[in-house]
Amino acid sequence: MTDPVALTAALIRCPSVTPLEGGALQLLQDRLGAAGFTCVRVDRGGVPNLFARWGAKGHARTFGFNGHTDVVPVGDASAWSVDPFGAEQKDGFLWGRGATDMKSGVAAFAAAAIDYVSETPPDGAIILAITGDEEGDAQDGTVALLDWMKAQGEQMSACLVGEPTCPERMGEMMKIGRRGSMTAFFTVKGVQGHSAYPDRALNPLPAMARLMARLAAHTLDEGTEHFDASTLAITTIDTGNPATNVIPAECRATVNIRFNDAHSSASLIAWLQEEAARVAESSGAKITMTTKVSGESFLTPPGAFSELVSAAVRTETNVTPVLSTSGGTSDARFVKDHCPVVEFGLVGKTMHQVDERVEIAHIEALKRIYSRILSDYFA
Amino acid sequence: MTDPVALTAALIRCPSVTPLEGGALQLLQDRLGAAGFTCVRVDRGGVPNLFARWGAKGHARTFGFNGHTDVVPVGDASAWSVDPFGAEQKDGFLWGRGATDMKSGVAAFAAAAIDYVSETPPDGAIILAITGDEEGDAQDGTVALLDWMKAQGEQMSACLVGEPTCPERMGEMMKIGRRGSMTAFFTVKGVQGHSAYPDRALNPLPAMARLMARLAAHTLDEGTEHFDASTLAITTIDTGNPATNVIPAECRATVNIRFNDAHSSASLIAWLQEEAARVAESSGAKITMTTKVSGESFLTPPGAFSELVSAAVRTETNVTPVLSTSGGTSDARFVKDHCPVVEFGLVGKTMHQVDERVEIAHIEALKRIYSRILSDYFA
Repeated sequence: MTDPVALTAALIRCPSVTPLEGGALQLLQDRLGAAGFTCVRVDRGGVPNLFARWGAKGHARTFGFNGHTDVVPVGDASAWSVDPFGAEQKDGFLWGRGATDMKSGVAAFAAAAIDYVSETPPDGAIILAITGDEEGDAQDGTVALLDWMKAQGEQMSACLVGEPTCPERMGEMMKIGRRGSMTAFFTVKGVQGHSAYPDRALNPLPAMARLMARLAAHTLDEGTEHFDASTLAITTIDTGNPATNVIPAECRATVNIRFNDAHSSASLIAWLQEEAARVAESSGAKITMTTKVSGESFLTPPGAFSELVSAAVRTETNVTPVLSTSGGTSDARFVKDHCPVVEFGLVGKTMHQVDERVEIAHIEALKRIYSRILSDYFA
Repeated sequence: MTDPVALTAALIRCPSVTPLEGGALQLLQDRLGAAGFTCVRVDRGGVPNLFARWGAKGHARTFGFNGHTDVVPVGDASAWSVDPFGAEQKDGFLWGRGATDMKSGVAAFAAAAIDYVSETPPDGAIILAITGDEEGDAQDGTVALLDWMKAQGEQMSACLVGEPTCPERMGEMMKIGRRGSMTAFFTVKGVQGHSAYPDRALNPLPAMARLMARLAAHTLDEGTEHFDASTLAITTIDTGNPATNVIPAECRATVNIRFNDAHSSASLIAWLQEEAARVAESSGAKITMTTKVSGESFLTPPGAFSELVSAAVRTETNVTPVLSTSGGTSDARFVKDHCPVVEFGLVGKTMHQVDERVEIAHIEALKRIYSRILSDYFA
């Protein structure tokens, strides 16, 4: 039996802050290789990634797990009450950066897969696609693994992403989709001048304020069947003019939109352009916009796969998980183009925080859940 | 006869960038002292100031001139086509920092006063109150001179400030008042959070955008008998949040208001507080405001004094000056509490700019105008 707690602890001791490998993928490769998995490092653009398969390539029943070993930076190390890479156990918790997000998840599915194939070799295959860049810009992480798999003819039939999904209580939530995410960067340009003579200048700030007020006041939707309402957040407005007697020439602002299946990034960009054009016309200011689309919304409609995962969670925790599409983005947004994907993992409360920690009993429960998902899938 | 052009050139060669004396006040003190003026340096808080009086202290007919010898910084010296402190004469212009604002004005009234008292000693007195800090925060400049004069029983019956007042053409404008100026600094505080979960945060930016849009859209007034309309300029909005996935906790903005006699700083502060409270209430954000009042509006109503100055300008230039209250602030805002004050000076086009320069003929005309004002005043 592979101990997922010891494996999580060993992974925490690898300082794999994005995009450093830190020994984490090598550790997994050693364990998986010893258990009969074919392992390939699929590094791209300086990002380390690990592909591992047990069973025949191209098998029609190939279950996939996806996760990441990279972690966000420690931040102010002196604010931690433990060594962030020490993997200390106390008060029933395992402490350290990545304890929740998501070395415990990777350890749980790796341990479940290793034990499952050695105890009950299935008629099928298991793929583990583990990246070293989920927390960074993620362009050479899971995407690189999926690109490589496609080129190699490696195919998953279904995939579970082991990210933390439970807000407070173990088992209470799984994800069957995610809202899309995009960011718009606005620049409003006017004509600089003296504050005493605004008629001789063209102040870009009233136009910016009006545009931002309009965007913030707009209701994108009230939610859809499987999704919460789309949201828009102005994240910054900046001018950088220290002189109170000067009207500035330019102002910048950034708006982040999390959108459900009532929208696409294209429809939102068209709306933003229309709003900007309206304010530009009425103000005389010049408004330009660039955008970055992190991902479109996606949904794996409730069905056999989500029911299989849900049942396993319920059996092991006595809690029926909500099928949610809430939250930020995850690498599931890439996997969904490859095969049906759902997400289930631990309670994410301390992720990215000082004193990140995971309840030890939860790691063990998560391994049991992943093991049950495998046995039910291959049953 | 005192040559105002040579005196301007000598002053330009003194590098009296605020608050440095640079030899400028000493030069004037030497010239005025030699002409029989009683001179006292009234320095305060590191700022050099010069008081000079010809005639009896407390005389009922005491004409005052006010001006400053300090200049704004050169900026990018390599962008100048001349030495900024070289006082070069070419193309009919005298070039250098302070050529327009306002070493020429000071030289013109000093030369006029020196020649007038030596040629036609009046039954009266002449005071020159010259500061070394008009361009800085001005708290220890003309204010210090006026404080000292009050304590000493020195009183001007009327005062002319020699700042540049003509937008394009010599003689076209004098100032009989100024709008007031105040600045409000807003901070909107909310609760930081993740862009994907705006419901768990309280974004201060929509409240800031709405408040700024409301303020900018408001018409303060349409102008009054002697004043242009009051103006409001948002000068900066800043957040400084580089993370598109983070809703910031705080945003700051600055608003500068130039106001006429339909308002006071107190009435405007009350209005701003009301607007802020309204947006705070509807948004839930906390809005705080601090203010800095640079000066209230003031007016020396058209009458004998303004007519005397206007007539002198008309006689010497064949142009009748408009009686204006436009523009920024000047030290006249301090003098108006002491005695009736008007402003008349050169064309201000190149002030504060690279290659600041003054038409040599204008300096000579300005001395003639100031001389005529003195002779008419004491007639």
